[in-house]
Amino acid sequence: MTPREWREKIRANEWTKPTPGLAEGHAQANLVVLPSTLADAFEEFCAKNPRACPLLERLPPGQFMVGEMAPGADIRTDLPRYFVYGGGHLVAETTSVLDWWAPDLVAFLVGCSFTFEWALQQAGVPMHHLEQERNVSMYRTNIPLRPAGPFSGTMVVSMRWIPADKVDQTIAITSRYPRMHGRPIHMGDPRAIGIKDLMKPDFGDPVEPMPNTVPVFWACGVTTQVVPLSASPWRMICHAPGHMLILDKKHGEFEEAAAQ
Amino acid sequence: MTPREWREKIRANEWTKPTPGLAEGHAQANLVVLPSTLADAFEEFCAKNPRACPLLERLPPGQFMVGEMAPGADIRTDLPRYFVYGGGHLVAETTSVLDWWAPDLVAFLVGCSFTFEWALQQAGVPMHHLEQERNVSMYRTNIPLRPAGPFSGTMVVSMRWIPADKVDQTIAITSRYPRMHGRPIHMGDPRAIGIKDLMKPDFGDPVEPMPNTVPVFWACGVTTQVVPLSASPWRMICHAPGHMLILDKKHGEFEEAAAQ
Repeated sequence: MTPREWREKIRANEWTKPTPGLAEGHAQANLVVLPSTLADAFEEFCAKNPRACPLLERLPPGQFMVGEMAPGADIRTDLPRYFVYGGGHLVAETTSVLDWWAPDLVAFLVGCSFTFEWALQQAGVPMHHLEQERNVSMYRTNIPLRPAGPFSGTMVVSMRWIPADKVDQTIAITSRYPRMHGRPIHMGDPRAIGIKDLMKPDFGDPVEPMPNTVPVFWACGVTTQVVPLSASPWRMICHAPGHMLILDKKHGEFEEAAAQ
Repeated sequence: MTPREWREKIRANEWTKPTPGLAEGHAQANLVVLPSTLADAFEEFCAKNPRACPLLERLPPGQFMVGEMAPGADIRTDLPRYFVYGGGHLVAETTSVLDWWAPDLVAFLVGCSFTFEWALQQAGVPMHHLEQERNVSMYRTNIPLRPAGPFSGTMVVSMRWIPADKVDQTIAITSRYPRMHGRPIHMGDPRAIGIKDLMKPDFGDPVEPMPNTVPVFWACGVTTQVVPLSASPWRMICHAPGHMLILDKKHGEFEEAAAQ
């Protein structure tokens, strides 16, 4: 099935589950929707923190039809599950945000690690969390972000257990996808970035280490959901974890020749 | 035409002008829509300030179909013109708020002076602003309101020139409509309530005095639009001045035996 066919199925509520692996070979994106009054500050925040918040597309105020990344996609209906926040609090979990849309909201699409996971698997680097059928482990860290307007905080990272003899290759491959979080932000000792217990992730699932693997950390798009909440926007709409927007772009289209 | 027929015409955008005089004999209402997080405080504010803010009906969160006051009316479409505010600023003037509705909004209907104007005219008290085809003159005053939650401020009043020999009758008649602002709040010297120049109203039009008339002031429903703005709610939706909700209730149904 093509990305468009998957989005139509999702729009019709015939698929309300997570999206990893759907429309194989195609990239997916994080969704963040904020009031238009905060949009410029959020774009600046993304520009200042491109590792955690690589902006793929910003839509005009009130616009819900995606442009370049997924022509014809309606961000109000074409993701399988959403979280809706009001004043910093969760007010709804829903499969459509038609009821919650407003002309003074601005949608942002942010890069997703599924692309570099695909590239790593293509190169034979195992993704243990996928083999264990779990969500990737994600953690709040003490890595400071560069503030912009009301937005500030620390980075959220994802962690994958990488065989020690494939770490160099992993760095080389992921560095070619800077718009999908790029190369690792840290590896080894989790305490160095403020993580106390790898088996107690803040988001996602714990993933058992395999023999001769080391923990490798990447900046994570969940940062774009956590940071705005602290600014208590009157409205924020996000995809539910793992329930992403499927793009028309293929993973390979985000590969860049020069390393990040 | 009945109230329902008028609302259907308005819903179809076949009438986008002010509503005074439509569906003759039927009452009309002010509309104020606020975020659900502010709804209880606003109801308390209305209860504490019943002269300016006589609450006719409060709808449940997200509910847009009116109950007792106008069964079948949709407050998103059945008023001819709306003002939409975000963060205390006007963001749109529109003939429908379908695009602006959200499940965490709460609608309030507040009494309107058209009812006591009707009663005064029935008794032969002239309404000069209607004869001059003008909106009633409205003014900000220094009359303090009782605060509730984030809501506080001073009263907005409307003024009508009443023949000196009909003032007693005017007080007696309007006092029988407490849910439609009731008896006058002041008469005579405008400076006593902080109004500098009667010919420079803050809202509505200036109205020329006729011989042997005195200015008589009533608490005004515009208070319910002015006060919440100072709390900068993320969303406020109001009727545009003069573009009210036409109720199924007749003016006479609001007459109460005991004086206010």
